[in-house]
Amino acid sequence: MKVFIAGIDGYLGWALAQYLTSRGHEVAGADALLRRKWVEEMGSHSALPVYSPDERKQAFKEKYGKELDFRIGDLTDYNFVTEFISEFKPDAIVHLGQVPSAPYSMIDRDHTVFTQQNNVVNNLNLLYAIKDIVPHAHLLKLGTMGEYGTPNIDIPEGFFEVEFRGRKDTLPFPRQAASFYHQSKVHDSNNTAYACKIWGLRATDVMQGVVFGTQIPQMGDDPRLRSRLDFDQAFGTAINRFCCQAVINHPITVYGGGHQQRGFLPMIDSVHCMAITLENPPKEGEYRVFNQFEETYSINQLASMVQEVGNEQGLDVQINEYDNPRNEAAKHYFNPDRQHLIDLGYEPSHDVKSEMGVMIKDLIEQKDRILAKEEILIPDIRWDGTHRRSEVTQKRTETISS
Amino acid sequence: MKVFIAGIDGYLGWALAQYLTSRGHEVAGADALLRRKWVEEMGSHSALPVYSPDERKQAFKEKYGKELDFRIGDLTDYNFVTEFISEFKPDAIVHLGQVPSAPYSMIDRDHTVFTQQNNVVNNLNLLYAIKDIVPHAHLLKLGTMGEYGTPNIDIPEGFFEVEFRGRKDTLPFPRQAASFYHQSKVHDSNNTAYACKIWGLRATDVMQGVVFGTQIPQMGDDPRLRSRLDFDQAFGTAINRFCCQAVINHPITVYGGGHQQRGFLPMIDSVHCMAITLENPPKEGEYRVFNQFEETYSINQLASMVQEVGNEQGLDVQINEYDNPRNEAAKHYFNPDRQHLIDLGYEPSHDVKSEMGVMIKDLIEQKDRILAKEEILIPDIRWDGTHRRSEVTQKRTETISS
Repeated sequence: MKVFIAGIDGYLGWALAQYLTSRGHEVAGADALLRRKWVEEMGSHSALPVYSPDERKQAFKEKYGKELDFRIGDLTDYNFVTEFISEFKPDAIVHLGQVPSAPYSMIDRDHTVFTQQNNVVNNLNLLYAIKDIVPHAHLLKLGTMGEYGTPNIDIPEGFFEVEFRGRKDTLPFPRQAASFYHQSKVHDSNNTAYACKIWGLRATDVMQGVVFGTQIPQMGDDPRLRSRLDFDQAFGTAINRFCCQAVINHPITVYGGGHQQRGFLPMIDSVHCMAITLENPPKEGEYRVFNQFEETYSINQLASMVQEVGNEQGLDVQINEYDNPRNEAAKHYFNPDRQHLIDLGYEPSHDVKSEMGVMIKDLIEQKDRILAKEEILIPDIRWDGTHRRSEVTQKRTETISS
Repeated sequence: MKVFIAGIDGYLGWALAQYLTSRGHEVAGADALLRRKWVEEMGSHSALPVYSPDERKQAFKEKYGKELDFRIGDLTDYNFVTEFISEFKPDAIVHLGQVPSAPYSMIDRDHTVFTQQNNVVNNLNLLYAIKDIVPHAHLLKLGTMGEYGTPNIDIPEGFFEVEFRGRKDTLPFPRQAASFYHQSKVHDSNNTAYACKIWGLRATDVMQGVVFGTQIPQMGDDPRLRSRLDFDQAFGTAINRFCCQAVINHPITVYGGGHQQRGFLPMIDSVHCMAITLENPPKEGEYRVFNQFEETYSINQLASMVQEVGNEQGLDVQINEYDNPRNEAAKHYFNPDRQHLIDLGYEPSHDVKSEMGVMIKDLIEQKDRILAKEEILIPDIRWDGTHRRSEVTQKRTETISS
């Protein structure tokens, strides 16, 4: 299968390119390299060194024995998109090429507008390019579990049957996204579902949990083949940040009481789920929604696991609570489905601690790179529009239940 | 009350400015005059002559005895927005300043992207301007009943209580918008609700039906005070188009079988509802949704009413069915609530025919202006992405039931 990866230079894009290639698919992709700039704008850098596109392509060729058609260009430029798609004629397009950060979108008006404009326009461009050039291609669009928020009922996969005042209908499950970034993903979900309806496109909208991990086995030992790994407040996500903090003896930054529950999954599960989704495409005109995560965990559970795994590797991992810069429910019900991927053969690994062990081993080697940016670990992007650095509200002396 | 009208030069904005002024409120407003350009782009013009902003301001001063602060500028320009809001310090902002056309948004990629980008960005600009400058101001945001689509259950006002797998929650009512324009309004609704939640803003999101009418009584006989009235395929709406067609002996263009049901309301009801909404603002932090329409009608009912009223005025009104360029349910359930406005004192007029009588009288005077653009009455913007002009599928010889 020919797969076009939008955002091939990113955390998941680079791993997915290798995973799909190792499964025998032909991959090409585009990236504007904006993630590199955004992380720099946050005053940070990736914990794992990120090599130039040319170095990455060279390493890819050495490892997989073929040239990778990886072009630098912006998906909001419709001419760039249509030219590339016309040449490559993909069977599937995976859309990972967006601003992926809630805090980044909450910095100020400019960042909110940029995030929504970039994400909405580049997704519309892909929808139009598919309609105009490869109408049978399958769009695998990366959404986020964060689109749903934390309703007080189970979270089905995209749709649910409702009974209201004695009548029934199957309707889109309401979204209650918790940042302007997450809202942009809801906008995209709505536009994508609509394009399938009116143009007969086929799409899978992946409501993905938070991905963690420093590598997938396919990358081997070549550092040029490794993905980036961010630990700043905007582009670093919970487990990745916690592991970086652990290796430099910085207390793990739990926001609020740590009772927030979210879906999480290792990087290998993420790329594997995307691969089996691509290998089992929807019908023409079908818009389907997959919830994609290994399991749900509370932030406290994850912090405790990182602490345990870190201490086993000789670290002395502390956990601090910080006042929460975000607007999110402190305690809430959270019970999302994820049956569709299991029906396609996905077997959740249920082995988060082994993954954390690999991560901490990888990250200990990058201790100096992380230490060099230690000052950016405490968040100051606040959902109320102010910019005050969070403060420690409690130092944990013992493990807290979830 | 000081009310800032975004889109003051538009069909509703110009009427609202006068209605609010006549109720004793102080009005100012901005407009980029884009609607004038878009209608020109569609090869059309307003059936009623539209005067220049200076002529409108002069007439306003003569009639209401005060200068109108009506500035030309684009709401996507944040500096323009903040400067004006900082000077005027409104108690309320009515946001009518958006691309309001489903067909326009469906022309091609450029028009889809422009519609969504313009509407999303200018609404974000107003939300940020309120937060930063006038945090207690009430935002009255014009949405559309089209955000809901046509679910097979009743349509509440924005929210509903759901029972799902034995648990309950009150959730946003799912939106199933039926064009990229309508999707842009859903994006705005989501962003607006979210801004209220995190910043404590207060907003009323008005899911308005289709407005019709050539005037409100406050306009008097001065043609400079009249609103525009469009009849092209993109900016003309059902009843307005039907009345224009009636006066030039062009058959009324019913798309499909005409069984589509929608909410409608006369222009005077629209501005009155907005006035009482402004005079009864929501609490700080409250995001409320009002469904705003006089009554629901099928397209067939409306076409027949225009026919009847036109014939009474000596016209010979024909009705033709055309193949439907849109993607919409041919027959469907439609039962939206509209209790909130009634609770605030709104009394639906239930007198559509009198309104149509006034319209036809006004439009007969503009017969030559309409005739000059007769060729633009048949739609060729199609939801499937093609551009084929619709054809007559049936000439009505007798009245068809709804």
